[in-house]
Amino acid sequence: MKIYVINGPNLNMLGVREPEIYGRRTLENINRDLKDYAYTIGAETEFFTSNIEGELVGAIQDAMNDADGIVINAGAYTHYSIAIRDAISGSGLPCVEVHLSNVYAREEMRRASVLAEKCIGVISGFGERSYFLALEALIHFIRSEQK
Amino acid sequence: MKIYVINGPNLNMLGVREPEIYGRRTLENINRDLKDYAYTIGAETEFFTSNIEGELVGAIQDAMNDADGIVINAGAYTHYSIAIRDAISGSGLPCVEVHLSNVYAREEMRRASVLAEKCIGVISGFGERSYFLALEALIHFIRSEQK
Amino acid sequence: MKIYVINGPNLNMLGVREPEIYGRRTLENINRDLKDYAYTIGAETEFFTSNIEGELVGAIQDAMNDADGIVINAGAYTHYSIAIRDAISGSGLPCVEVHLSNVYAREEMRRASVLAEKCIGVISGFGERSYFLALEALIHFIRSEQK
Amino acid sequence: MKIYVINGPNLNMLGVREPEIYGRRTLENINRDLKDYAYTIGAETEFFTSNIEGELVGAIQDAMNDADGIVINAGAYTHYSIAIRDAISGSGLPCVEVHLSNVYAREEMRRASVLAEKCIGVISGFGERSYFLALEALIHFIRSEQK
Amino acid sequence: MKIYVINGPNLNMLGVREPEIYGRRTLENINRDLKDYAYTIGAETEFFTSNIEGELVGAIQDAMNDADGIVINAGAYTHYSIAIRDAISGSGLPCVEVHLSNVYAREEMRRASVLAEKCIGVISGFGERSYFLALEALIHFIRSEQK
Amino acid sequence: MKIYVINGPNLNMLGVREPEIYGRRTLENINRDLKDYAYTIGAETEFFTSNIEGELVGAIQDAMNDADGIVINAGAYTHYSIAIRDAISGSGLPCVEVHLSNVYAREEMRRASVLAEKCIGVISGFGERSYFLALEALIHFIRSEQK
Amino acid sequence: MKIYVINGPNLNMLGVREPEIYGRRTLENINRDLKDYAYTIGAETEFFTSNIEGELVGAIQDAMNDADGIVINAGAYTHYSIAIRDAISGSGLPCVEVHLSNVYAREEMRRASVLAEKCIGVISGFGERSYFLALEALIHFIRSEQK
Amino acid sequence: MKIYVINGPNLNMLGVREPEIYGRRTLENINRDLKDYAYTIGAETEFFTSNIEGELVGAIQDAMNDADGIVINAGAYTHYSIAIRDAISGSGLPCVEVHLSNVYAREEMRRASVLAEKCIGVISGFGERSYFLALEALIHFIRSEQK
Amino acid sequence: MKIYVINGPNLNMLGVREPEIYGRRTLENINRDLKDYAYTIGAETEFFTSNIEGELVGAIQDAMNDADGIVINAGAYTHYSIAIRDAISGSGLPCVEVHLSNVYAREEMRRASVLAEKCIGVISGFGERSYFLALEALIHFIRSEQK
Amino acid sequence: MKIYVINGPNLNMLGVREPEIYGRRTLENINRDLKDYAYTIGAETEFFTSNIEGELVGAIQDAMNDADGIVINAGAYTHYSIAIRDAISGSGLPCVEVHLSNVYAREEMRRASVLAEKCIGVISGFGERSYFLALEALIHFIRSEQK
Amino acid sequence: MKIYVINGPNLNMLGVREPEIYGRRTLENINRDLKDYAYTIGAETEFFTSNIEGELVGAIQDAMNDADGIVINAGAYTHYSIAIRDAISGSGLPCVEVHLSNVYAREEMRRASVLAEKCIGVISGFGERSYFLALEALIHFIRSEQK
Amino acid sequence: MKIYVINGPNLNMLGVREPEIYGRRTLENINRDLKDYAYTIGAETEFFTSNIEGELVGAIQDAMNDADGIVINAGAYTHYSIAIRDAISGSGLPCVEVHLSNVYAREEMRRASVLAEKCIGVISGFGERSYFLALEALIHFIRSEQK
Repeated sequence: MKIYVINGPNLNMLGVREPEIYGRRTLENINRDLKDYAYTIGAETEFFTSNIEGELVGAIQDAMNDADGIVINAGAYTHYSIAIRDAISGSGLPCVEVHLSNVYAREEMRRASVLAEKCIGVISGFGERSYFLALEALIHFIRSEQK
Repeated sequence: MKIYVINGPNLNMLGVREPEIYGRRTLENINRDLKDYAYTIGAETEFFTSNIEGELVGAIQDAMNDADGIVINAGAYTHYSIAIRDAISGSGLPCVEVHLSNVYAREEMRRASVLAEKCIGVISGFGERSYFLALEALIHFIRSEQK
Repeated sequence: MKIYVINGPNLNMLGVREPEIYGRRTLENINRDLKDYAYTIGAETEFFTSNIEGELVGAIQDAMNDADGIVINAGAYTHYSIAIRDAISGSGLPCVEVHLSNVYAREEMRRASVLAEKCIGVISGFGERSYFLALEALIHFIRSEQK
Repeated sequence: MKIYVINGPNLNMLGVREPEIYGRRTLENINRDLKDYAYTIGAETEFFTSNIEGELVGAIQDAMNDADGIVINAGAYTHYSIAIRDAISGSGLPCVEVHLSNVYAREEMRRASVLAEKCIGVISGFGERSYFLALEALIHFIRSEQK
Repeated sequence: MKIYVINGPNLNMLGVREPEIYGRRTLENINRDLKDYAYTIGAETEFFTSNIEGELVGAIQDAMNDADGIVINAGAYTHYSIAIRDAISGSGLPCVEVHLSNVYAREEMRRASVLAEKCIGVISGFGERSYFLALEALIHFIRSEQK
Repeated sequence: MKIYVINGPNLNMLGVREPEIYGRRTLENINRDLKDYAYTIGAETEFFTSNIEGELVGAIQDAMNDADGIVINAGAYTHYSIAIRDAISGSGLPCVEVHLSNVYAREEMRRASVLAEKCIGVISGFGERSYFLALEALIHFIRSEQK
Repeated sequence: MKIYVINGPNLNMLGVREPEIYGRRTLENINRDLKDYAYTIGAETEFFTSNIEGELVGAIQDAMNDADGIVINAGAYTHYSIAIRDAISGSGLPCVEVHLSNVYAREEMRRASVLAEKCIGVISGFGERSYFLALEALIHFIRSEQK
Repeated sequence: MKIYVINGPNLNMLGVREPEIYGRRTLENINRDLKDYAYTIGAETEFFTSNIEGELVGAIQDAMNDADGIVINAGAYTHYSIAIRDAISGSGLPCVEVHLSNVYAREEMRRASVLAEKCIGVISGFGERSYFLALEALIHFIRSEQK
Repeated sequence: MKIYVINGPNLNMLGVREPEIYGRRTLENINRDLKDYAYTIGAETEFFTSNIEGELVGAIQDAMNDADGIVINAGAYTHYSIAIRDAISGSGLPCVEVHLSNVYAREEMRRASVLAEKCIGVISGFGERSYFLALEALIHFIRSEQK
Repeated sequence: MKIYVINGPNLNMLGVREPEIYGRRTLENINRDLKDYAYTIGAETEFFTSNIEGELVGAIQDAMNDADGIVINAGAYTHYSIAIRDAISGSGLPCVEVHLSNVYAREEMRRASVLAEKCIGVISGFGERSYFLALEALIHFIRSEQK
Repeated sequence: MKIYVINGPNLNMLGVREPEIYGRRTLENINRDLKDYAYTIGAETEFFTSNIEGELVGAIQDAMNDADGIVINAGAYTHYSIAIRDAISGSGLPCVEVHLSNVYAREEMRRASVLAEKCIGVISGFGERSYFLALEALIHFIRSEQK
Repeated sequence: MKIYVINGPNLNMLGVREPEIYGRRTLENINRDLKDYAYTIGAETEFFTSNIEGELVGAIQDAMNDADGIVINAGAYTHYSIAIRDAISGSGLPCVEVHLSNVYAREEMRRASVLAEKCIGVISGFGERSYFLALEALIHFIRSEQK
């Protein structure tokens, strides 16, 4: 089983910008631990990170032929990228939406997420732990679907 | 460590109503498994289920003196109960919002959740598995806070 | 055939409060006549009245195993109780929404009824007669479905 | 006692278009049965059907001097015809709004009905049976007013 | 100089319906006086009244080749007839919008008038006198344009 | 009979600013002609012009004891001065709202006029002629009320 | 003279939860002082507190036969309980709405209070003192009505 | 194969009103050329033009038994005629919506078209050429459906 | 201790305009009684009344150096004067908002008060008694702050 | 004559993703046929496809010096890319907006297209045939402009 | 060259109220420095400051005959004074809008500025420096226009 | 001191597209002059221009370690790029938003700028001069912060 872990704009700055809010762990650190964790529960991971909306669309298209599911933190694009939504929808893969902070808590946003509609579920607010919970939930979902 | 698991209106019908959508497992089945799971990771659980908004408010108030955190699936009240939101906020306890289906996927709702603002995080869309992920995330959060 | 007739908040005050608007007939009077009327067209009735939203949810859940249909006047909860809507939807029973006054005539309400979406039909504006028309319509509907 | 039964746009196609939704009974069939039914409860009926908004306005104006009440299914005009609303209001006659399907169940409509405000009541969702219930309710209303 | 005076839905009931609000003078009475008044200030009048939106469109199209200006009270169509607005705009004639009651006083209307945008001016709230003021204003406007 | 003619902000610049739009006639010119016109139809006029919202409120309060009616062009305050609306309403005097251009034609305004609700009628779009029509309509109204 | 003092959800936690915001005085303390204060100005008080919307409806219904007026702090229900609004309206009693903090200061709320419409007045923002001012205002109102 | 070409309000004025915008070709000219063009690609055409909403409804109902598809330019009714939308939907025929100017370019319209939802496609902005493209697209669609 | 009592537009007409609604007591009468009442509880009062928004701004600025608190009834400006709100906020003084009628009861207002956000509390609906309650509440507040 | 045919995000997946909805023909197949079709009516085509918004902007800028017109299917960017709209507007070239499915039929979109305002016309809903109609319409437009 | 520098409500309190936010420099200090700065770049300045909307209107009218341009900080009136907007528009002078704090940063305002539409540009957020930048930009603009 | 000057989509076309609106000076010309101007006031500049949203995000991230402040004209992305807003916010650098035309003057935009909230100030409407004013304001700000 293979899972794509896709990160959007500004997530490459994790551990660098505003460490007092987001902690000092870099995305690289997290991805390495995620790889290990996935391995222990019998899955392979592939990582893709970009600031460019269209490249994230491309990564999701690539996943279509190569992966069994997607964990995605689309960063700011979560709020407005219909292009990424279409890519998720078109891929036909189960996808879990992840956020470090609880984006659903902020009511001023007109739409917290345009992606949620095309995802099987959402995990939001648990810092880097959100990725691990998402990976666990996604793998569990894929296995129960395969039965 | 003690966690309250609180369920709102119509969740007492789990496994009974619309089993083709929500599965045949009753809330009792799930709660028993949750208790076991919590036990294995060193936590005690207390369960409360009611159709009545004010009783859910009361249960959250009780948790204030008795528990370290709350996992809550407020059912339909998620969408409009400011009273439950106030109770969560007033309790001062970390709270994780849980949903069986992915309520954030439905864009027609004016506000998916009035509770999210007072919760540390949200887990939505993974069926009964959402409860287990929430318990895990909450306990992890409490332990990291205690350090 | 058995029909639940469920009344929500403040309807226990029928015949007592504002009799110049709602008449001097109490809910008890109406229910007795409804029972007789139902009897003449070959149906049994069960009455439930409460001011508490969650108890109305419970009554609808009870109807699920005991009745063939529901006539409901949810009073003020008509405008905002997603919990009652979920209960109606989950019960799988045909339900007719009833109002004494013509609530659909008042355009200032953001949503006249959140229940209508889950009911087979609506009868509104004919005073206590609305109940009799609803009973008649519901029994007719159930019989035609049974064919 | 004389009742006008007025039908708006596309209702002339009843029994012809989309019979799997609206049934195979034509408006003519229904009107004949309504005439009989009215007769048995001591009332005369007059039928008017048109696709043209202004002709429906005219029919309501005619009713003013000739009838004791109106049963109206204004079809699509229900949602936007202020002209028909003005005609109902100006006629001074009691009017019952009727719909085959439960138009109040569809929340996406900005205003389910601009006519309801000028009608004594609404009956919606019971197929052709809606007309019979409306006739019964209207005649009952007129008689109780006459006392 | 020739002026079309066009009246829309329900205005044929002037003097008949709700005389306590709109007075006992019929549209015929008013039109006769308008004809006389126009004559005294050197203009000819042509009257057209219909409940049907499309016939009002036709009357405005006829005015295009036959008249120098239009006085229009489109009744309820004032609030939503883009078809009449297009006809006024296409006619190229100066047009004055008239209302018996002060429709601009009612704030609940989403748009008091969709016609005003294509008219040179509006006179609203002076009962039948509104027509006389409009005729006077329109003739004055046409004459000052001709200079 | 005495009529107050009240003009709001920037109307003191009539004939001075943007003469290609509003003409070269000053407010003084117009007021002089209005005085003469009023005289010929048996009424006295009093003029008040100010850029200051509160002074316009004061002028309307003065009219209460001194005049039989008000013609008002509140300029930009038309769109938002609840204070002037309250003053008109409190004065108990019949008031006619006047505009040089057709303010009701511009649909982008959230509310064309907050005053119209408290006026007997509106005359809009006829340049300085609007004042003469308003005076005529107001005097006619007062006389017919006195009968 | 007898006054009902009714408190809604989470107010039972006064003096317990978030004492740095709401102070350390419990609702019991406040009620005792209110009783004394009422006594000195010649009135009797009855206290009712509940987290359950329907029970607050019931308390207001009870007041109808037993009391001369109501002081109510409906807590979170203030924002959405049409059921409580209907109960106040149906009771026919003068009612004063009270809040500890200034709820009208928060502009993000779509409707600060659905109850205000059925109350004679509102006192908001003065901490526990709000209750004393409300009691004083209500008794003064009842006495001036009795004259 | 037979296609109905239906034109709504003010389109009878094509070539007459505002020729500098819409050109000097009349609807008759265009229809003659459309007939010829249809003939060359093996289809028959039937033309219907009316200012009256209800007559357009009637024409669409007639098409139901007589034609294989509809090309419709509903003019101003495009923006608000739910009656025409219902007729299209009820006819079960493939329908192409046509506009001379690019109505979708104007963002101020609350809804550019209430018909589009029931049409297979839209062609907008190419002057009279829009009709030819629509005819071509519709015939192509019908033929590919027949395979 | 010194309190400014500031009254906005049209409040100078108290006792004069619409006495059947607002009573026959003038603002002068009320102010004299307020002065006496303040004196008995150990405070001095200063009164300022104006129809002009900018003068009310000035009075609040004056209070900054001269007074300990403000009681303000800004009349119609309550609904839209950001300038007065800024002045209150900038003064740094505790301010109580007062209304004769219950302005919070009228739901049609887009914003009942733009001032409430900058006031410590609101008292609304008790006629002239509102001023006395406000004075009492404000003085109590200032004294408890001084401790 | 040279036409740019520009395709946006996810259109590279045509024939691959969701073939049951969009068919099995790839974008390459369509482009080849478009090239041939253009050739037969005397035009050259240039194709550009990208998932990246900014690259589509660049392609439109390139067209400015190289092409006579643009056919664009901007995919999801149609709904929100002001950047692409600015590029179209700045290029000064005639542009036709194309969609495979009828995007104007979906009313839930806040704005179906932000591009339409800068295009000469729109063709939507005819599958790959939309491109051919657009090419035909665009070439026809350019030729008629050149006369 | 002569520039009017106009300041609106509460700006007379600069350096006095909330000095920790707005600094201790008074408007007088700033104006003196502005005068000097203008002098060095060859322009004369005239200063006007008022809390009264109508007086600001008057100052702009005065500028019309006396000045070459306006720098305006309308304070709170920026958000709602259509009267000031009309005055700027009517003056025909180039005008630069200035703000001490970055008012465009606050998204909750329904409209940050009703004046911007009539100004050549906006400078916002640089404290008193905003005035100097505005003066520089305005003089530069006037000179380039004169060429 | 080092300042990044970042330009977004379509600004590479300055001097090329629509020169009658934006002038004939290219971005290169402006940047060269900006470099010189910065040099004279003791600052170094670095230029970055791209049509791609994600590359602009990257440039801002680069500035974080290399620059003291940012001048940004994000072109169309100003209106919707939350990704760029997050990058500005995360960089911790002072940033000035610049526009050639006065974007705040166009009221139809739902949100003129999503970036302003994260910038210290805005300069809009002065053509290329806006850049020079921004540079001056930014350097002044950085120096005053350093004190």
